[in-house]
Amino acid sequence: MSLINNIAPELITSDWLNTDSVISLQSLRGKVVFLHGFQMLCPACVTHGLPQASAVRNAFSQQELAVIGLHTVFEHHHAMGREALKAFIHEYRLRFPIAIDMPDPVSGIPLSMQQFDLRGTPSILLIDRQGRIRFHQFGHIDDLKLGSMLGQLVAETDITEKPVVDNKSSANETKGCNEHSCISP
Amino acid sequence: MSLINNIAPELITSDWLNTDSVISLQSLRGKVVFLHGFQMLCPACVTHGLPQASAVRNAFSQQELAVIGLHTVFEHHHAMGREALKAFIHEYRLRFPIAIDMPDPVSGIPLSMQQFDLRGTPSILLIDRQGRIRFHQFGHIDDLKLGSMLGQLVAETDITEKPVVDNKSSANETKGCNEHSCISP
Amino acid sequence: MSLINNIAPELITSDWLNTDSVISLQSLRGKVVFLHGFQMLCPACVTHGLPQASAVRNAFSQQELAVIGLHTVFEHHHAMGREALKAFIHEYRLRFPIAIDMPDPVSGIPLSMQQFDLRGTPSILLIDRQGRIRFHQFGHIDDLKLGSMLGQLVAETDITEKPVVDNKSSANETKGCNEHSCISP
Amino acid sequence: MSLINNIAPELITSDWLNTDSVISLQSLRGKVVFLHGFQMLCPACVTHGLPQASAVRNAFSQQELAVIGLHTVFEHHHAMGREALKAFIHEYRLRFPIAIDMPDPVSGIPLSMQQFDLRGTPSILLIDRQGRIRFHQFGHIDDLKLGSMLGQLVAETDITEKPVVDNKSSANETKGCNEHSCISP
Repeated sequence: MSLINNIAPELITSDWLNTDSVISLQSLRGKVVFLHGFQMLCPACVTHGLPQASAVRNAFSQQELAVIGLHTVFEHHHAMGREALKAFIHEYRLRFPIAIDMPDPVSGIPLSMQQFDLRGTPSILLIDRQGRIRFHQFGHIDDLKLGSMLGQLVAETDITEKPVVDNKSSANETKGCNEHSCISP
Repeated sequence: MSLINNIAPELITSDWLNTDSVISLQSLRGKVVFLHGFQMLCPACVTHGLPQASAVRNAFSQQELAVIGLHTVFEHHHAMGREALKAFIHEYRLRFPIAIDMPDPVSGIPLSMQQFDLRGTPSILLIDRQGRIRFHQFGHIDDLKLGSMLGQLVAETDITEKPVVDNKSSANETKGCNEHSCISP
Repeated sequence: MSLINNIAPELITSDWLNTDSVISLQSLRGKVVFLHGFQMLCPACVTHGLPQASAVRNAFSQQELAVIGLHTVFEHHHAMGREALKAFIHEYRLRFPIAIDMPDPVSGIPLSMQQFDLRGTPSILLIDRQGRIRFHQFGHIDDLKLGSMLGQLVAETDITEKPVVDNKSSANETKGCNEHSCISP
Repeated sequence: MSLINNIAPELITSDWLNTDSVISLQSLRGKVVFLHGFQMLCPACVTHGLPQASAVRNAFSQQELAVIGLHTVFEHHHAMGREALKAFIHEYRLRFPIAIDMPDPVSGIPLSMQQFDLRGTPSILLIDRQGRIRFHQFGHIDDLKLGSMLGQLVAETDITEKPVVDNKSSANETKGCNEHSCISP
């Protein structure tokens, strides 16, 4: 079932970094939310996704738009624990709040990742001012297209129901990591 | 006097390329217009401005947004005539309509460039669905910010009067050409 | 017949820019010569070839290596005359000597281009300290590989006869210009 | 005391990855050695240094030149252990042998790093066919210059004593990591 146009469920997290307190999506109602699912050892996240998330944070007013990172570890769990992530955030100078997705010891796929039906990393979800998921994509999206969608969402004052653009994945589908993405089992 | 929020005057042109007929801004009412002022021998136009204009044309529906090039020659007039521009358009595979700004033999600064108060090349003007100039900038603008402004303008249905963002130039002000821009005398 | 390992013939030129006097290849004996064939309206030359030629000039001592540009116009002759080239050189801030290849009114292919058997633009020829052509390539070559060949040629003191690397073209063979090159008729 | 032109000491390592057996520099005598000191959480290593090391490996014959990685962890030791490095190597598809620098529990600076007097990461050492250190640099070096030095070293058959180029650091000297490098305490 597509999540598009449905109210985004809350993140299920084990911890938060770069913030003093837990952040609920509910508390961000009224702002556009750019949610970026990543893993610290996913090459495409490091090269493209996280720099783009930082650029989004700089391009928009924090009154209008919130950038949230979601560390969704589905492989190499031992190498991407909380302390490793802290070192990574420090060295890469990430400034936005980052949630650690709640591990699921059974499947290895963390719980928010399951709930949002993310295919792998990097993943992007755009949530409108009313809390609805309006776009999600697995893999890379170019700045011009992303900017356009964010601009539309920021400009919205009325209630519409269509996705801001069609939801097409630009990542190709080989399992594991390539230069575009990491796909979960 | 700032042009921001005023109805854009018509282009004053000596010719058009990549189109069968003269295009008036009036005839584009209802669409957002991305107007790109360039010179074929301006390095920053060739490296950044024109590829960005082509990317904008590909990113948006032509029902929603029109890309128009304006060849505003204010130096090396002998090297950037109509036939040279045709060769340039062919080799660089530009697909959008391009107006040739009407020369002013007295000042050397062509007439549309004077009318729109352009500082040099590359220059960008964004015109909203109602024909008003909402943004203009001399020099480079990054894709994320440009996409955001275009997304806002495309999403507009009501009447607002503020510029979509502040009008700040990112080009530095040395006369002549540098890697960012060419400035007119 | 391959030119590899033969003494390079002299350039046949109608004019020189960025130099006070005509330069003969004979006069450069003792230095490595990086000869770059280009056209000012060839997109791949503007984007890759000429910036690389400028980088080569900056990376090596002029006592060890000479960079020479060769403007080999085989199309759009009217748009790439001497005065247009001067404006281009000025705006793109090219500093190395540039020869204008002698036009051949009959074939349209200029004479040095014929003599060196160049396929199109950009083209690179490497000439060793003894005046022999050691490498030529049509299309783009990456910096690491180019640097390696230049380093080998600069280091040579003995007499060898093999090309520094095999002569393979990285440009694909569509006639006209694409993002990699322009091919002559 | 400068190491330039002295025989490189052996690496002091706790383990090797991407190779079946320990590699001694002695055993590489006759080849040029490109030694790349890095940390898996050093942004400049991930963005520039390691892709360049992989490109060097592809550009040269393994009969002529050996690429060796040296994981010199001087910070965030808990996040860059052997298992984390294995995951990193897998995801970034590094193919060349990688030594793990022997930790020094007292200073935190590993032993090879001390012995080679490395300032931080990324660091490059070039060792000639006779086993002498001919160049070392902390921070980024561009492909053209690097290629030139490697080409010179590969071409060498006689005995010379000068460094291939002057040993200048391009990294600036702020402690910690920036986009160019990480500097050790």
